[in-house]
Amino acid sequence: MTEHAQANLKNLYRIFTVPEAPDSTLGSVDQALTKDLAGFLQEHIVAQGTSLEEIEKDFSTSAIPEDPTFVSEYTEFLKEKLVAQSVHTASPGFVGHMTSAMPYFMLPLARILMALNQNTVKVETSKAFTPLERQVLAMLNRLVYNRDDAFYAKWMHNSRSALGAFCSGGTIANITALWVARNRLCGPDGDFRGIAQEGLFKALKHLQCEGLVLLASRRAHYSLGKAVDLLGIGRENLIPVETDDNNRLDMRHLRNHCHRVQEEGKRVLALVGIAGTTETGTIDPLEEMADLATELGCHFHVDAAWGGPTLFSDSHRWRLRGIERADSVTIDGHKQLYVPMGAGMVVFKDPQAVSAIAHHAAYILRPGSKDLGIHTLEGSRPGKAMLVHAGLSIIGRKGYELLIDQGIERAQHFADLIEADPDFELVTRPELNILTYRYHPAWLQKITAQAPAEQQKTINSLLDQLTVNVQKAQREAGKTFVSRTRLEPSRYNGESITVFRSVLANPLTTDTILEGVLAEQKELVRCYPELLAKLRAAATIS
Amino acid sequence: MTEHAQANLKNLYRIFTVPEAPDSTLGSVDQALTKDLAGFLQEHIVAQGTSLEEIEKDFSTSAIPEDPTFVSEYTEFLKEKLVAQSVHTASPGFVGHMTSAMPYFMLPLARILMALNQNTVKVETSKAFTPLERQVLAMLNRLVYNRDDAFYAKWMHNSRSALGAFCSGGTIANITALWVARNRLCGPDGDFRGIAQEGLFKALKHLQCEGLVLLASRRAHYSLGKAVDLLGIGRENLIPVETDDNNRLDMRHLRNHCHRVQEEGKRVLALVGIAGTTETGTIDPLEEMADLATELGCHFHVDAAWGGPTLFSDSHRWRLRGIERADSVTIDGHKQLYVPMGAGMVVFKDPQAVSAIAHHAAYILRPGSKDLGIHTLEGSRPGKAMLVHAGLSIIGRKGYELLIDQGIERAQHFADLIEADPDFELVTRPELNILTYRYHPAWLQKITAQAPAEQQKTINSLLDQLTVNVQKAQREAGKTFVSRTRLEPSRYNGESITVFRSVLANPLTTDTILEGVLAEQKELVRCYPELLAKLRAAATIS
Repeated sequence: MTEHAQANLKNLYRIFTVPEAPDSTLGSVDQALTKDLAGFLQEHIVAQGTSLEEIEKDFSTSAIPEDPTFVSEYTEFLKEKLVAQSVHTASPGFVGHMTSAMPYFMLPLARILMALNQNTVKVETSKAFTPLERQVLAMLNRLVYNRDDAFYAKWMHNSRSALGAFCSGGTIANITALWVARNRLCGPDGDFRGIAQEGLFKALKHLQCEGLVLLASRRAHYSLGKAVDLLGIGRENLIPVETDDNNRLDMRHLRNHCHRVQEEGKRVLALVGIAGTTETGTIDPLEEMADLATELGCHFHVDAAWGGPTLFSDSHRWRLRGIERADSVTIDGHKQLYVPMGAGMVVFKDPQAVSAIAHHAAYILRPGSKDLGIHTLEGSRPGKAMLVHAGLSIIGRKGYELLIDQGIERAQHFADLIEADPDFELVTRPELNILTYRYHPAWLQKITAQAPAEQQKTINSLLDQLTVNVQKAQREAGKTFVSRTRLEPSRYNGESITVFRSVLANPLTTDTILEGVLAEQKELVRCYPELLAKLRAAATIS
Repeated sequence: MTEHAQANLKNLYRIFTVPEAPDSTLGSVDQALTKDLAGFLQEHIVAQGTSLEEIEKDFSTSAIPEDPTFVSEYTEFLKEKLVAQSVHTASPGFVGHMTSAMPYFMLPLARILMALNQNTVKVETSKAFTPLERQVLAMLNRLVYNRDDAFYAKWMHNSRSALGAFCSGGTIANITALWVARNRLCGPDGDFRGIAQEGLFKALKHLQCEGLVLLASRRAHYSLGKAVDLLGIGRENLIPVETDDNNRLDMRHLRNHCHRVQEEGKRVLALVGIAGTTETGTIDPLEEMADLATELGCHFHVDAAWGGPTLFSDSHRWRLRGIERADSVTIDGHKQLYVPMGAGMVVFKDPQAVSAIAHHAAYILRPGSKDLGIHTLEGSRPGKAMLVHAGLSIIGRKGYELLIDQGIERAQHFADLIEADPDFELVTRPELNILTYRYHPAWLQKITAQAPAEQQKTINSLLDQLTVNVQKAQREAGKTFVSRTRLEPSRYNGESITVFRSVLANPLTTDTILEGVLAEQKELVRCYPELLAKLRAAATIS
């Protein structure tokens, strides 16, 4: 080996070693980073005003660097080009997506997580993280199903069971639930060795049916579309069920669809209820859906990725009535449990349901072992359950209750502000802590409401352009942020319109900030005089 | 609101706020944790000698705590009950699984990641993290396919393309690749609107075939089994292809299987080559597999989750020859890129391949946007690509080359040690940095080799028990760690035997430690005098 290579090797070993003194290079880089980070987190802006195209220039080399770089040099680059150009999702003015403030204690704990680098797929690389994850799943299972102590004592650490599955997020949680549902519906039966073994083609032949069908509100999350694609069911077999005036799934329509589907020779695989839709925060009629699922003998899944933690609240728990009858329920840790990104969970009513997707290998996951990977879609996984455990322990049920209650109150207050302002139209009143609205001045609202269909369409289309422009401009200005989506309110005959969408889950968001969001939007509207002129013209046509 | 509730609320806000002075409670908890962690990481043991059942007692309450807990109190619990009872995967004596030492700079960077809490599903919650992730995927794509600058300039930041997909790990990466392969094979065609839309049942009717088939070496990772189950293909349609004496997929057998499958009216969906099998680190004949895939017109996927980074090495790159002809390649960041758990990637040869699994929603992922979530299986995701970017920048190509070269040298040295020791039998010689062996004294090896089938079976079965016992005892002792698996070496007529499995990827592992692993195993063998007596008896039967 050359002297140069030996020197390189020595440096290489050094980066794998914990710095002994805090004044070592790495130690001081570490301290400096922590300080800078605190500064960034205290800033009250959402994002720097740099365009994506501009930022792309700093991330455009495709060649992997040949030579090593000093950590200090790299962190300078990171601070300037990445940290400063990222989105301050924890800012109290960031009220547009389901990403919120972070309890500060998560940061040192996250550091432990990274340093321990456990792999929860198997006990041999996770040890105590395995019982911890099983406990977290039991806690969430209890939050939903509220079984007794004996039940949990029997199943929590039982190698033949899993009270749920931990995963990277709600999408994988939903897919896992529907994978279980599909494999149970098409399980081994006589000569048929089950869909896991023989596949969907033979399964449908065996069941003598033309297809499997999933039914969910048209407001359901797009992950259900991915799930039916991935599982071989097909997107056309995910039936988007009509909603009522409050964006809740309409039971009459659901029954009709189920009836029609069965007449077409298809089988209902599952009904999916939503507890907190992504766009409007609505909760479907879970109790009635559970009744229908029982009647049909099909799986009942509830996607409570967002709304699940509402169960912490004594005042609002009733809104999710019926969830305890679901066969499976998705809850996200990185949403209203305030855990960093990458923590999804699905819990099952039947502690042995997951056996429908069990898998083994010769080197790990042997039958009878407590390896968590036997029942998870993912393989190697980090020990993120630790942060859910920390949240549940440190914040406690009552702490989460406060967060939930405050969020709902704040959303109602924001809705009141919007309704009181003659320049805005509240499109969906919040049931939880999500609402939608748009700029639509009172004088125009009167005209739009009574306008003939063609004129109404013209006005709405112009308002759509205005909403898109204002949303983008507000995002680029970077002081506050709301998102946008498209809805079909009945007041406009089910025509699709673009709306602002606001998610109120950050405890640091104040009324003043919310007033500021509206004030900024009113100002931004004035930047589009041509659109406003067109609107005035469209309003006077008739 | 009661006074008590108001006090609670105040405390709640406090936990969401960055501590202003380092001597605040949270600041000092943070500092103490960092110090304790450094202590733990410097320990040279693998795990504490506590049984899983004992540990479970500390994680057995299913009720979520009602009241909040002090952070300091909780971290004491964590240190004692979790950190101390976790597996020290970074220990130089932990040479049993694919979890290795961690470059120290990853820890402060991981903290940034957690604090920024970006969600890379969409630009609105990730901004600069989006171009960064696209760049990382381009770098890995270039490592595999080595296209020219113009190619990457055209596609890297193109909204109509994705040079790969970032995900939580190799399993999702493999599933993503095969999902793309399935949807491309069964794409829209005339009246048929494609499998994504119509599902697998109608797709197979349209293709007029009886099933889709995946072929991979019987040494392939168990995630392929999950993939064919999930995708509706069925586990019986994953054909485990026989391997040669070096555990490489046997091309003659592969050709025969393909022939047979087609005669049965099935379609070959994909051939899967392995670059670094999980159990033996073997590389399949990728070049010849690519030839066959071209001949059959099917997808060619390479699972290089482990072995991919071998491409960094000028001395060993040739071993993966043919990988550049694959349609898709899986590489794990949390394996030989030395990034914390939760970083998988799949890269595609065709920059538009992922359009086969594209999906949209009304509130994000709109057509034409650069949102990464349009082409990923997962939804919300953390910005882990940042840590891959950091590794590639700070360690550099040459640094990774050193790590790869050293690992392979160390494995060869360990193999030499085992072969030189009369008490051990080297079962598989390392091609990369993974090897398998077992305790099998030279005097007995001679007898086993020449024994009649029945006697050989008896001896191997006793040796299996010994290997299992020793592996478990060594794991429980917690000083060093190797894993175990089952293989079918031709020298025992393809009968399955249990072997120790060692993965040499930690640059801090020394020859002395490896000698210690063997010495400890020899000592542990003596704890099973009954088994040894049975072995002696079995050896003298004939």
